[in-house]
Amino acid sequence: MNRIQTAIVGASGYTGMELLRLLLTHPRVELTAVTSRQEAGKALGAVFPRFQKAAGAELVFIEPDPDAIAATGAKAAFLALPHGVAAEIARALLERGLRVIDLSADFRLKDAAVYEEFYGHPHPAPDLLEEAVYGLPEIRAAEIQAARLVASPGCYPTSILLPLLPLMREKLIDPETIVANSMSGVSGAGRKADLSLLFCECNESARAYGIPKHRHLSEIEQELGLAAGKNVTISFLPHLIPVNAGIVTTTTAKLLPGAAPEAIGAALQNAYAHAPFVRLLGHGGCADTKNVTRTNFIDIGWQYDPRTGRVILMSAEDNLGKGAGGQAVQSFNLMFGLNPIDGLHNF
Amino acid sequence: MNRIQTAIVGASGYTGMELLRLLLTHPRVELTAVTSRQEAGKALGAVFPRFQKAAGAELVFIEPDPDAIAATGAKAAFLALPHGVAAEIARALLERGLRVIDLSADFRLKDAAVYEEFYGHPHPAPDLLEEAVYGLPEIRAAEIQAARLVASPGCYPTSILLPLLPLMREKLIDPETIVANSMSGVSGAGRKADLSLLFCECNESARAYGIPKHRHLSEIEQELGLAAGKNVTISFLPHLIPVNAGIVTTTTAKLLPGAAPEAIGAALQNAYAHAPFVRLLGHGGCADTKNVTRTNFIDIGWQYDPRTGRVILMSAEDNLGKGAGGQAVQSFNLMFGLNPIDGLHNF
Amino acid sequence: MNRIQTAIVGASGYTGMELLRLLLTHPRVELTAVTSRQEAGKALGAVFPRFQKAAGAELVFIEPDPDAIAATGAKAAFLALPHGVAAEIARALLERGLRVIDLSADFRLKDAAVYEEFYGHPHPAPDLLEEAVYGLPEIRAAEIQAARLVASPGCYPTSILLPLLPLMREKLIDPETIVANSMSGVSGAGRKADLSLLFCECNESARAYGIPKHRHLSEIEQELGLAAGKNVTISFLPHLIPVNAGIVTTTTAKLLPGAAPEAIGAALQNAYAHAPFVRLLGHGGCADTKNVTRTNFIDIGWQYDPRTGRVILMSAEDNLGKGAGGQAVQSFNLMFGLNPIDGLHNF
Amino acid sequence: MNRIQTAIVGASGYTGMELLRLLLTHPRVELTAVTSRQEAGKALGAVFPRFQKAAGAELVFIEPDPDAIAATGAKAAFLALPHGVAAEIARALLERGLRVIDLSADFRLKDAAVYEEFYGHPHPAPDLLEEAVYGLPEIRAAEIQAARLVASPGCYPTSILLPLLPLMREKLIDPETIVANSMSGVSGAGRKADLSLLFCECNESARAYGIPKHRHLSEIEQELGLAAGKNVTISFLPHLIPVNAGIVTTTTAKLLPGAAPEAIGAALQNAYAHAPFVRLLGHGGCADTKNVTRTNFIDIGWQYDPRTGRVILMSAEDNLGKGAGGQAVQSFNLMFGLNPIDGLHNF
Repeated sequence: MNRIQTAIVGASGYTGMELLRLLLTHPRVELTAVTSRQEAGKALGAVFPRFQKAAGAELVFIEPDPDAIAATGAKAAFLALPHGVAAEIARALLERGLRVIDLSADFRLKDAAVYEEFYGHPHPAPDLLEEAVYGLPEIRAAEIQAARLVASPGCYPTSILLPLLPLMREKLIDPETIVANSMSGVSGAGRKADLSLLFCECNESARAYGIPKHRHLSEIEQELGLAAGKNVTISFLPHLIPVNAGIVTTTTAKLLPGAAPEAIGAALQNAYAHAPFVRLLGHGGCADTKNVTRTNFIDIGWQYDPRTGRVILMSAEDNLGKGAGGQAVQSFNLMFGLNPIDGLHNF
Repeated sequence: MNRIQTAIVGASGYTGMELLRLLLTHPRVELTAVTSRQEAGKALGAVFPRFQKAAGAELVFIEPDPDAIAATGAKAAFLALPHGVAAEIARALLERGLRVIDLSADFRLKDAAVYEEFYGHPHPAPDLLEEAVYGLPEIRAAEIQAARLVASPGCYPTSILLPLLPLMREKLIDPETIVANSMSGVSGAGRKADLSLLFCECNESARAYGIPKHRHLSEIEQELGLAAGKNVTISFLPHLIPVNAGIVTTTTAKLLPGAAPEAIGAALQNAYAHAPFVRLLGHGGCADTKNVTRTNFIDIGWQYDPRTGRVILMSAEDNLGKGAGGQAVQSFNLMFGLNPIDGLHNF
Repeated sequence: MNRIQTAIVGASGYTGMELLRLLLTHPRVELTAVTSRQEAGKALGAVFPRFQKAAGAELVFIEPDPDAIAATGAKAAFLALPHGVAAEIARALLERGLRVIDLSADFRLKDAAVYEEFYGHPHPAPDLLEEAVYGLPEIRAAEIQAARLVASPGCYPTSILLPLLPLMREKLIDPETIVANSMSGVSGAGRKADLSLLFCECNESARAYGIPKHRHLSEIEQELGLAAGKNVTISFLPHLIPVNAGIVTTTTAKLLPGAAPEAIGAALQNAYAHAPFVRLLGHGGCADTKNVTRTNFIDIGWQYDPRTGRVILMSAEDNLGKGAGGQAVQSFNLMFGLNPIDGLHNF
Repeated sequence: MNRIQTAIVGASGYTGMELLRLLLTHPRVELTAVTSRQEAGKALGAVFPRFQKAAGAELVFIEPDPDAIAATGAKAAFLALPHGVAAEIARALLERGLRVIDLSADFRLKDAAVYEEFYGHPHPAPDLLEEAVYGLPEIRAAEIQAARLVASPGCYPTSILLPLLPLMREKLIDPETIVANSMSGVSGAGRKADLSLLFCECNESARAYGIPKHRHLSEIEQELGLAAGKNVTISFLPHLIPVNAGIVTTTTAKLLPGAAPEAIGAALQNAYAHAPFVRLLGHGGCADTKNVTRTNFIDIGWQYDPRTGRVILMSAEDNLGKGAGGQAVQSFNLMFGLNPIDGLHNF
């Protein structure tokens, strides 16, 4: 079968490494370009010892130049770049006919003013916001299939939205009462030389951070609002814990008067019974990151607490997998008409 | 200065080890008895290599026999035993004139029916419940000073109650809206040969458990109810994370209409400015377990989120320290009129 | 392409789980039987949440009955059983026409007396020892291809033998001076409820164990002796370190008089330049377990120290991968004439 | 009892933090100065949340100016500075009448040429080398008592020398055959923003480094040579493992012909039976870092392997404790005539 010529732009961070890991062995992908300003000129296998002897490990990093990328014949590009930087190169690649899956925050928000509020600078390409598709494949498969530009969701938002959206759409819970509590592995903070990310600062440590207005809140509330048909404001409490990868999120909200507890499980079943990467653990199921690391799965359990009238949703995903690289590949498979599980059914 | 003859009953689990660590170097304690059914006859330093060459390491474990314990001249006994087992020996030691600090759940609840509901068996000594003092030294110093029997609080309850109680007493928050999210180190699950506690099952793993009705909920709600002057029911979401020790708890609740956000910090200041083991991190302070492990400190930060009208309280403690052994020693210091920080100002 | 009907006998430990992980996605394997006494009757996906939604996750565990296994049409069986137990079922499966890859120690030694010395009981099937092939694919590809019974090597031996054997065969080092120092992840100790393997006993801990006569020494010395053409006795110093998986081994030995330091790299190149799962890191390369976990690769670096005249060999592998399940699948690929990297080129 | 006015110069790294932890609660120390270029002007408790509410936490960091340090009345100074930098300030403080315990490598070597060979620059104060005392309190108590300038040993050297020196002095082992294998926690690499020290680069990783000529080799061989009465050259194989603190070292060497295996234990007993911080685990004892972390103890076990004729020595220490800050305080206690265990008998 023919392979899609594909580029990874910004392949030297943890998300870039995960994309490499997935795309080097994807049966329908031919990597034609990998870019990194700091590693340009070096072979992929030399930069990442893990990938030595992979087919493709001899590929040489190039500068993130749009013409050079397009010249490799790439039809698709994954962008694993900082927000603010991604928008510019996304536009350039779109202009050269590539389809783009952007893993930064640049195209996730529909409202440029909200972007500026949460990211602290004006949006670099507001004219592209309307076209961009927020890439949750379980929610917007058709739009993703047709998209030129997919904004792949953040890791926390994925872990919060997938359990909540079916309940919001079926109006089972009170949006005013949502509290989402998340714990993330350290890779979520990126691969940067920062004292606070040293082994000895993170190991045997657990702490909240980014309280009360983490940047990911903007896309979470946008998507919950779309599902609810009105503005939604929630409490989001992220924490850093000493694991390399994985996010576990426990979200609670009041069941609306008149809604039956059984409707919770039914709503999740309706939404995800046929979703290849959502695994429902049933009532009482407690999701554990150790079952999803290095996969594109999200595990979801739920519970109803009659004492408080609250629903409790528990999800686990790999922040680099379903929360980043895996989900981006899932969108790519949709965009190019491939088997949804191509390159992603690893365990 | 004279030393208090002291016994530790059940000294072979993680809580027992922490008590040993603290009491072996406590300037006003003479350990006269340490008990363990499985280690009876062996010297303390032989069972726990960490304590070799400590003064007292030659002490020999004995069976948990009340007469034998009393015969050592012990005036005080710490019980680090499973619930259900502790009550019986507590009674026997009280009858022999010892003062008892029980670290199990047996005397924490005032209502034997609630005990049976949460612990699954009838209370073993209901007649002692009225006398027992729930040993939060920051809240009940005077009662603890006079107590014969102190029920030392659970690790989760301590991390939740200390930040919340001042706000409850000053009626700043709506009890109906409380959600307490906790993450605990693995030592909290005890030292028992259980597959789910193996290194490879816990490392690189994070998961909720005990949802929605963890046993510690019973004492949390009891104490919150006492502070509120009415029944309180909350959501408590405990998680297991891969650290040896430490609990971080992030609790959120709606500020009551009319209450000023500044009142939160003021309430905490009023309550704890002079508390030797509570460290207030101020508005925006994120408590980190790595600053409190192996100490008796609890660090507390707080934040007000105007978007949601919620208060966010962040606390960190060592589950074996302020959450168990340290807090028990803090009560002991009160009971015997010692300096509050004796044996506890380690860093 | 047709698939080989395959059984995994004893699939509930860590090695069994790794075999499941590899074989569930192996393009040329159809799992027809998985056995486990304690999980018999349950579906694979129910026992191991990680494998839910895998093709094959609905397979139901059966008892390890040879007739039942054979009745599934299995042509090959992987045995992940304790030593002593494996031999009996291996014989029964061979008699039923299956080819067997045994991951226990039962068929690794040629001399039943050495087995008894190191394993503490008489060999359960000495008549099969001559036929069994010690399954290091880089060393004995032809024999493995033809074998009915492959004894897949231990994790430590693999990490020690692959770097050493080429130097032994070319008589570059003095066997009398070999010291092999290894550090293993905790999964190497198996999945058993044992206090010493608890998270809190292994985390923030490092210790030697099994000194000076670890069981794996028997097969290490057997294979080194075969390469040297004489008896070889070495020092083997295994340690347990707090990682889930991975072994790093640093071995040192004196260069023989007359041998040139350059001959070391040349010998390794000669042996492994075309080996699909050995990656040579060159002079000065320090192998790191983080580059090989969850793969079948072994990374090997080397250094010559002119101060001491010693060669230093550094290897890293995943103890469950190249050290167990991966290597067993590598032998399976040889036995059934498959592409050597089928099912194993994961990163 | 009176307290010794004491300064810590360079108190913002991991060794400085450990010195703070020990000296803030040392019964005979009054901290008068703590220095740090980057933290100057801030209070100790503000820089290190762990030390808030300690007596002394209000002390304000100053610049490392010798006059300013001396002006605080300090009689002793601990230097926790990089090599090359320490020598200059050591000289300045000595000239101002302070006694100095230097934790850098600057005064550990007697031969300035060896310093230049291993550290890559000329020695900054060769005239002080003769006076400086290599501060192993178990070996040179009398010299340390009288010293103006103590060079506190490196972490690896301490773990290697204490087990080996008694055997070297009694001529039980062949120096030509010594191989020392060490595994160190990540804090040993210092508190610096470096990609290779990030949590995600160290967790689930184990690797050799600094092969074959780690800087610490210079002081190891110097001290072994002094004990042997001749030049000694050994193999030293350091590794990095994912723990915060702790070094485990396993050293092996051939027993000399004529030496009895029993002489090994006897030599260790002779040397350390009365040493307050050395714990002998006996024949077969495997030292575990988890028993020594945050203490000044070194645990030592040993074994004789009749198969190879080699002695195996196993030691465990905290690299920041007995390997750095604790040992420096141990020397300080000697220098000022204090009880040897003052401030150090923590468990």
